[in-house]
This record gives sequence, structure tokens and C-alpha cells, in this order.
Amino acid sequence: MTTVQREFGNRLREIRQEQCFTQEELAHRAGLNRTYVGDIERGEKNLTLVSMKRLAKALGVNIRDFFDWEL
Amino acid sequence: MTTVQREFGNRLREIRQEQCFTQEELAHRAGLNRTYVGDIERGEKNLTLVSMKRLAKALGVNIRDFFDWEL
Repeated sequence: MTTVQREFGNRLREIRQEQCFTQEELAHRAGLNRTYVGDIERGEKNLTLVSMKRLAKALGVNIRDFFDWEL
Repeated sequence: MTTVQREFGNRLREIRQEQCFTQEELAHRAGLNRTYVGDIERGEKNLTLVSMKRLAKALGVNIRDFFDWEL
């Protein structure tokens, strides 16, 4: 697990919870597997650009919103 | 080729050229293959979070700087 994966996962969970989605709801909207979304949130997946875009679209945010933890 | 890949590639090329790096220099600094960097810039690769981080670090920028084309 890399730091960037962990930070991304934490931020994804934060945005998802702000919007009151379950992992299952988010996965469904993004066309991804629920297990995969859970793995991303735990920092266990090195997800791709296209998956980021799907998650952003499903949450109604921009990809860059996933990176506001960067200094 | 997806829109997000093309937009990412265009922005990566722009930042690289602003910093006067060749594709080969950027690839070397990021620990990636030169061909791979060229493919990303042409929007032909669905790169991962960890590769984005390597490119950002090599260019001295944040990952979110690759996404300033988002509305």
C-alpha cells in the first residue's frame, strides 16, 4: 500500500460519506464492484484514471477534488 | 481512447514542455519508460494513481495540477 493510495482512499470515503452514499450505492452509480470501492477506500488499490473519472462523475465532483490533501 | 485520457495527456505534455523536459528526461526522472510517457501524452494509456504520483513528483507539481482542465 502506498501513501498516495491511502490518502486517495481516505478522501474518497470522506466525499462519499458527505453525500450519504453507501459503498454499494457509489459502486452501482460508477459501474464498479462494491468490493473494489471498499478496497480503494482502504488504500489497497492502485486505481486508474478512468476509474477515478467514473467515481468523480458518480459523486458529482471533479477528479481534482480527490486530491485536496496534497500540500 | 477516452476523453479523460486525452485531456490528461495534453496537460501532462503542457507541464513537461513548460519545464523544458524531453519525454526521455521525464521518463527517467519518474522511473517510467519513454514510450509509456509518449503513449500517456497521446491519450493512449489509462495510467494509474501511482504512475500519476511519479510523474507529479518528477515535475515538481501536485497531481491535481494535471486536472486543471476540469470544469
